Amino acid sequence: MRLSIQSDAYFMQQALQEAQTAAERGEIPVGAVVTVNGRIIARGHNLTETLTDVTAHAEMQLITAAANQLGSKYLPECTLYVTLEPCPMCAGALYWSQIGRIVIGARDEKRGFTTIVQPLLHPKTEVHWGVLEAECSALLVAFFKKLRQQKG
Amino acid sequence: MRLSIQSDAYFMQQALQEAQTAAERGEIPVGAVVTVNGRIIARGHNLTETLTDVTAHAEMQLITAAANQLGSKYLPECTLYVTLEPCPMCAGALYWSQIGRIVIGARDEKRGFTTIVQPLLHPKTEVHWGVLEAECSALLVAFFKKLRQQKG
Repeated sequence: MRLSIQSDAYFMQQALQEAQTAAERGEIPVGAVVTVNGRIIARGHNLTETLTDVTAHAEMQLITAAANQLGSKYLPECTLYVTLEPCPMCAGALYWSQIGRIVIGARDEKRGFTTIVQPLLHPKTEVHWGVLEAECSALLVAFFKKLRQQKG
Repeated sequence: MRLSIQSDAYFMQQALQEAQTAAERGEIPVGAVVTVNGRIIARGHNLTETLTDVTAHAEMQLITAAANQLGSKYLPECTLYVTLEPCPMCAGALYWSQIGRIVIGARDEKRGFTTIVQPLLHPKTEVHWGVLEAECSALLVAFFKKLRQQKG
């Protein structure tokens, strides 16, 4: 039974706050939270620039953090809220984690996992699309617009 | 120019030693090394059980370690030697790293990245197959045989 005292929009708003923090640090603004039974157990954002590490996507960090919190490699009771569609790396990691549910904000039509026709997620993982999609997308659009202006 | 004082077989042997260490620790025996100009800059093996973390594949750790060593997110001058065909998660990470070359021992017909028809690696990444394939495969077969005997 999934006891959710807060809505998907509430948790996506928390993920958006993480994305906003990423933007302020010069990171591509993608944020995420992981919940169990309607409580956040891990939160974070993209840190690829800060850590000089292409694997430091929000999702990757949160899979590790959630497993640490729960003392289990597998996350069937968890929901991941993420502001941008995961890439194939993150989808592959989510597959191994057997995560129960993924809630996604904006689509990534260029590098999102659904650009791969074959399924990358675990068959037991539920996916829910488009929560606060406009807000999640607007943050990314504004970030890249500013970046282009800075580069001249 | 790639100065390789040692052969691919030599570096795969080093990766195999890592895989052997993994097996001794009860980890699925997959090992890897990363080289630049014929020198090993990072080495490691699968640690998913030890770290309770599905993302702790040898390749993921070595992408992070190599980037740390080089102070660069991107690894076009690097070669990864890995005893087993990378999974989609690792292939996705290798894509982001733009790694120059990947040398693979055994194939993973069930979960290897080539089970996905669309390309997951970066178009600039060269792939070389089958170095010490029999030895890399034998280590895995022996590991799973022993595991079944222990469980059975």
